[in-house]
Formats: sequence, C-alpha cells, structure tokens
Amino acid sequence: MIVDICLSPALYPYYQKENDVVVVVDIFRATTTMCTALDNGAAAIIPVADIEQARGYQAAGFLVGAERETRRMKFADFGNSPFEYTPEKVSGRDIVFTTTNGTRAIEAAKDCGRLFIGAFSNIDNLADNCLSSGERIVVLCAGWNNCVSMEDTLFAGAFVEKLSERVKVVFGSDGVRIALELWEKASNSPMDYLKNTDHYRRLLANGAEGDAAYCLRQNTVSVVPYYNRESKKLTASR
Amino acid sequence: MIVDICLSPALYPYYQKENDVVVVVDIFRATTTMCTALDNGAAAIIPVADIEQARGYQAAGFLVGAERETRRMKFADFGNSPFEYTPEKVSGRDIVFTTTNGTRAIEAAKDCGRLFIGAFSNIDNLADNCLSSGERIVVLCAGWNNCVSMEDTLFAGAFVEKLSERVKVVFGSDGVRIALELWEKASNSPMDYLKNTDHYRRLLANGAEGDAAYCLRQNTVSVVPYYNRESKKLTASR
Repeated sequence: MIVDICLSPALYPYYQKENDVVVVVDIFRATTTMCTALDNGAAAIIPVADIEQARGYQAAGFLVGAERETRRMKFADFGNSPFEYTPEKVSGRDIVFTTTNGTRAIEAAKDCGRLFIGAFSNIDNLADNCLSSGERIVVLCAGWNNCVSMEDTLFAGAFVEKLSERVKVVFGSDGVRIALELWEKASNSPMDYLKNTDHYRRLLANGAEGDAAYCLRQNTVSVVPYYNRESKKLTASR
Repeated sequence: MIVDICLSPALYPYYQKENDVVVVVDIFRATTTMCTALDNGAAAIIPVADIEQARGYQAAGFLVGAERETRRMKFADFGNSPFEYTPEKVSGRDIVFTTTNGTRAIEAAKDCGRLFIGAFSNIDNLADNCLSSGERIVVLCAGWNNCVSMEDTLFAGAFVEKLSERVKVVFGSDGVRIALELWEKASNSPMDYLKNTDHYRRLLANGAEGDAAYCLRQNTVSVVPYYNRESKKLTASR
C-alpha cells in the first residue's frame, strides 16, 4: 500500500493523485471535535470555509460551530472544544462547522477518491476503513494558516505506524519518513513532547489544556467521519 | 534572534515577513553546486527558472548549467554536479544556472531583505553572515517539486544548531522544532540517515553517489553566495 503525508493544505496540489483516499487531520482540535460530535449522535457536520456562510446557515436554523484563532466566534453555538458537543446538544442535529484550518484542508481535498476525518480518537478504525478501498492513502495535515504543525505531523506518523501493523506500507515521499521519525521520538509521551509547540501553547493561553489531553487519547470514539460529495456533509460510518 | 524554517517554496508566502534574511537550500545539489562554482572562481551565477531563457543566454555566449529530474540537459555546458564546475572551466565566467527546485526557491524569495545561498559546505560562514544584519532568518528549503525533502530539512536543523551556538534563537514556528529533532537523530551520520530517502536514491540511480557525500561535508568552501536584486546575479562574499 502506498502511503504519503502532506504537511500543509497549500501543498496538497503537489501530492494529489486521482482516486486517493485522503485523511484530513487537525488534531488541535477541529477533526478531533468533529469525531466527538458525530460519536455523540450529531446527524452530520457541514464544513464551510467562511463565516458569512455559517451565519446564513444559522439564520436558517442550523447549529453552528465557529472558531478563529483558537477562540469561539461570538455568534456561534459552539467553539472548537470537543467538550462542547454533548449528546444533549448535538443528537440528531446537522451542525455547520468552520474553523481556522480544518475546514480549509477539507476544501483542498474534497475532490479526492474518498475523504475521511482522522484523529487520535478514531485512529485504529480509521486505519481499517482507509485500507478497505485498496487505493493510495494520503494524510493531509491541516497545519496552522498553511504552516506546518507538530501535532498534525505526529498524528500522521502514528497513523502510518498503524497502517504498517496491518499491511506492507510503501512510502510515497520523504514526508512519511519525517513524520515517522518524529512519532518515534514522541510516542512514549506525546503530551510532554508537544509542550513547547506552537498550538499547544495557544491552547494553554486560551485555557484549553484539557482539550489537548483529550485530543491525544487514542480510540475513544467509534466513528470514522467521511465526506459525501453530493450532500457536502460529513457523516459517520461505525 | 527569531529563526524560522519553511519546508517548501510553495509555503514561502505563509512564512514571509518584511526584511527577512532568507537562506535558500537545495542540498542535493543546486545550492551546494553554486557554492562550489563561486568558490572555484566563477564571477557570478545567474539563476533562471526556465530552459528557454537559459538557451537564450547560451546563444549570447554564456556558460549554462541546466538540470531537470536529476539529469543534465543535453544542450547545457554543465549539469548539477559540483564536480563539473572546475576552476579551469568557471574561473572569471558568469554562469547561467537552472535546476528543478533550487532556482524555483530563489524566485519565490527574491524580494526578501537579503537572500543567501546555503549548503553544508558553507554552513559556518553562512551563520556568521546571516547574523550580521540582525533581522529574522528564514531557511527556505527547495524540496522536490514543491514537496518536502529530508536532506533540506536536515540542513535546516543543522543550521539552526549553528545559529544557536552563536546567539539565543527564538523558534518562529514548529518547522524549526521538526528540523532540529530530525537533525538530532541524523547528525552522527547524515549519509547513513539519508540512505533510504527519495533524492539520495535518485542520485544513486543516476550514478551520483559521490556527489551526495560531497554535499554533506561541512565547511569545504569559503564563499557565501548572496543575491543582488538589481543585477539578478548571485555573487560571493568571502
């Protein structure tokens, strides 16, 4: 199985191949939060790139999660913390979701063969689902304003490790080697490893340290969100 | 001193700040070869992005180095191996130079405050020159067709280590952490560390194993090439 890792949405055009299975990851916190919301019973997530679109949906009666620069936008029903998306609030509802980086990454890859949402919280189920189609797998890291981020890169390394426990993995490019090397150093204690990184410090400054710990725990949900190109919604396969 | 690392020319717009000192690196082999040519007495290097422009210069009497996909182009006087640029051939001459990735990186950053050419071969002098201006320093990795490459990332880590031996370095983003972590693993034996990477294997397939060894040796030249925006030439400070 050929596997590649793309460290920024802005680089995706250079990694893209037809029919790729793409895993979008934004560990702190968008894709982790999406997994939680669907696991807690949300019917679907509608990712949108801009705020005006999200406001329009809200006016039409949808719940809206909206975050910019690590903070919840005032008009929104939710920010980007997984703990906000409780079963009581989300069950059975479609939720419109716009975040700094995660939705941009989905937008970049939406014409791929299949698009899954990845997080540590669904990493093993995700590996199984990705392998089922037999196509090349590309992990697309959301990063931060198109810059490379450590936590997404680490996840990519961890995920390739999971794949290689299941099949023989062929590295698509040096991006895979870089992510695996970093994960090897971090895997004993990812939280400690990330303590000095950019986005962890941003979360800390916004009182979201608990979110970071949650976002690094493996296999806490049973859903693997995937993108439906016709409906433009993310729904869950279990 | 703030230092950042940009892993691909396509990401440079997201790392760019006014007055930055930018170090362009394409370890295998463009920037290493440029350093060698200038150290062997070439008057200047004129980087051009496309082949037609290079042919035009050749018709006007210039020597031309041109490489695509690791191979010398047939019309050119030189390819991209540092060993071709001997004192006998290059001394006193302006050399037009176009390679797959190196010249693209120069093009991306040419409006920065100061643009230097970096390689393991000039790494210590480079660190001294970059620090002299007091501005933020960004290492711009040329990569491979805008994809991230291990050897350029390793150089970036090695270079930040050199800077931090001289001044207190503040990390501009996670890119710096990633490069330093990798360099820490590779520094004992960079050649062994790179043996399975994409571009090393490409060099091997083209009989250029000796080039790779040369490109990883530190402080073998005395020049630090810099880009002159008016003349659009790279010349050497010693």
